[in-house]
Amino acid sequence: MAELNLPVTVCYLDESGARHIRKGVAFSPRGVLDILDQTRLPESVVRMSLSTPLEVFDAIKRLCVRGAPAIGCASAVGLAVCAARFEETDGTAFMERLRKTASFLKSSRPTAVNLMWAVDRCCAAVAGLARPADICQKLLDEALDIIEEDFRLCRRIGDFGAALLEDGMTVLTHCNAGALATCGMGTALAPVYRALEQGKRIRVYSDETRPLLQGARLTAWELAQAGVETYTICDNMAATVMRQGKVDMVIVGADRIAANGDTANKIGTFPLAVAAKYCGIPFYVAAPFSTIDRSLPDGTGIPIEERSSDEIFHCPGVKVYNPAFDVTPADLITAHITDSGVIRF
Amino acid sequence: MAELNLPVTVCYLDESGARHIRKGVAFSPRGVLDILDQTRLPESVVRMSLSTPLEVFDAIKRLCVRGAPAIGCASAVGLAVCAARFEETDGTAFMERLRKTASFLKSSRPTAVNLMWAVDRCCAAVAGLARPADICQKLLDEALDIIEEDFRLCRRIGDFGAALLEDGMTVLTHCNAGALATCGMGTALAPVYRALEQGKRIRVYSDETRPLLQGARLTAWELAQAGVETYTICDNMAATVMRQGKVDMVIVGADRIAANGDTANKIGTFPLAVAAKYCGIPFYVAAPFSTIDRSLPDGTGIPIEERSSDEIFHCPGVKVYNPAFDVTPADLITAHITDSGVIRF
Repeated sequence: MAELNLPVTVCYLDESGARHIRKGVAFSPRGVLDILDQTRLPESVVRMSLSTPLEVFDAIKRLCVRGAPAIGCASAVGLAVCAARFEETDGTAFMERLRKTASFLKSSRPTAVNLMWAVDRCCAAVAGLARPADICQKLLDEALDIIEEDFRLCRRIGDFGAALLEDGMTVLTHCNAGALATCGMGTALAPVYRALEQGKRIRVYSDETRPLLQGARLTAWELAQAGVETYTICDNMAATVMRQGKVDMVIVGADRIAANGDTANKIGTFPLAVAAKYCGIPFYVAAPFSTIDRSLPDGTGIPIEERSSDEIFHCPGVKVYNPAFDVTPADLITAHITDSGVIRF
Repeated sequence: MAELNLPVTVCYLDESGARHIRKGVAFSPRGVLDILDQTRLPESVVRMSLSTPLEVFDAIKRLCVRGAPAIGCASAVGLAVCAARFEETDGTAFMERLRKTASFLKSSRPTAVNLMWAVDRCCAAVAGLARPADICQKLLDEALDIIEEDFRLCRRIGDFGAALLEDGMTVLTHCNAGALATCGMGTALAPVYRALEQGKRIRVYSDETRPLLQGARLTAWELAQAGVETYTICDNMAATVMRQGKVDMVIVGADRIAANGDTANKIGTFPLAVAAKYCGIPFYVAAPFSTIDRSLPDGTGIPIEERSSDEIFHCPGVKVYNPAFDVTPADLITAHITDSGVIRF
């Protein structure tokens, strides 16, 4: 079985300098949240040690750690290491400080659902505890649980997806739904990594992903680190690559999936699905089952965030329209690859 | 009728400093080729005065002047101003020098058909002449003829295209097939400009056009100068803009059209056509009738230039695929808007 070199996106660093991504570590007042600074990639591989609420908040806000699952894990470990430094010795005062810190961390990226979910889960886990030391240990256990669950979930997506990949196939992907976006092997890239571990040779075309170039900066970097033959292309070249028969399937991630299978993902996903349909190429969405939002009957209800015009070069007097996501209709999606299996809506 | 402020892409500048784009100017040994330096746009509006073969060659090679029709006009005026400086007084020696200069200019961009055509046309026009002064005058006349023809041709494309545009409509375009690419009002943008002159209000979404950003740098600039409400978007946002009902039609230019209507144009055109079809939006190609190459039965015979990997940001160990053009099948094109009318293949 091939050895994959995947980045450690988020972990707990104890005072001896050992990194942990599994439960069973005693909390220490000097343990820190250790993350790979994604704003420096691919030029520099720099890790950050974070231990105060402001440092954790800032790292999430500045996208040093990004990707919904990775943000959830980072905020959970972050809450534990911050709590380990509280001076409060009284249980009630300690809990009050914890609640304030939790609220503050949750405000770093208001739309990141995993952030809210992970912080709330950690707070709920310590609800019945009174001794600060017990609370700190439980917070760390819960945070490492979240990391382990994410690790297993990615691997399950990878197993279901790898079954669709044959030796010698080529995958086209968009944005970064890889190891850097999770604490495991990613979502959209998990099938590629699992297939490689199974000894299959897989090639990847990675869209550069305008305007922030997550594909060119992050996806291509992590694939190259893992030894995958990778091509960077501009987003507008993907349809030609498909038409030339250079790719066997498209696999992308998802930010939100409606009850009918309509899928919101990074801007540029929808035109890939349209082109894949035209070219007769399968188009897959890989995401945790929990990304399906049953409260939304279809994609029309998914709000589309518009980002700053500063992200796109424009001349004076020219306006910019900068939607961050688009919605791909379910009828353009061959199937959704989830941790609960391959689903056809 | 609205006054349009369109750039003078290429002209003849006489020694008094007057600019000419119409025949009827006496050649002068000090006249120069005057062009707008497009490599400096949109930050700086800088004109260049060129009068030696090396200067003209360099300006074409470095894309200071670009767009097939504009290159043709620039090379023709360039040949005339260079010839006006030849020291040779003997007719035979003068003609020999002219031939060498013509070959040199033609080698600046070997694949630019209009460049070969314009230079050859000017040389052919002086074939029977012997006196250097007569030759220089005829070269200048021919060059200004080529500019005038381009001007009228763009306007005819504009007239046929403007008939498709109603007051209040919005057009989406790709790359730059505007005034900057021609000596007139462009090809893809000519319908927009003629509609504006007819008093219609037209809005334009301009794809930034990766990797060289001709849309964001050139198209948006010239539209803003002309007072057109313009939005710059990333290429991967165009499909969403169409699906949201924000545009009424797509108009793009063409580099080469096969006998069956298959059309080669800047990379990113094909996925726009696929998305337009999916969204039920008309997709037009605007180009001179002469762009149709009857020797090619269909688009499969059109060679696709691959450009340097340096144009696209990529990590070490990652390959790049950088095709400069793509081919849009005729069945995705609503019609071709030409100077001979609107053609449906």
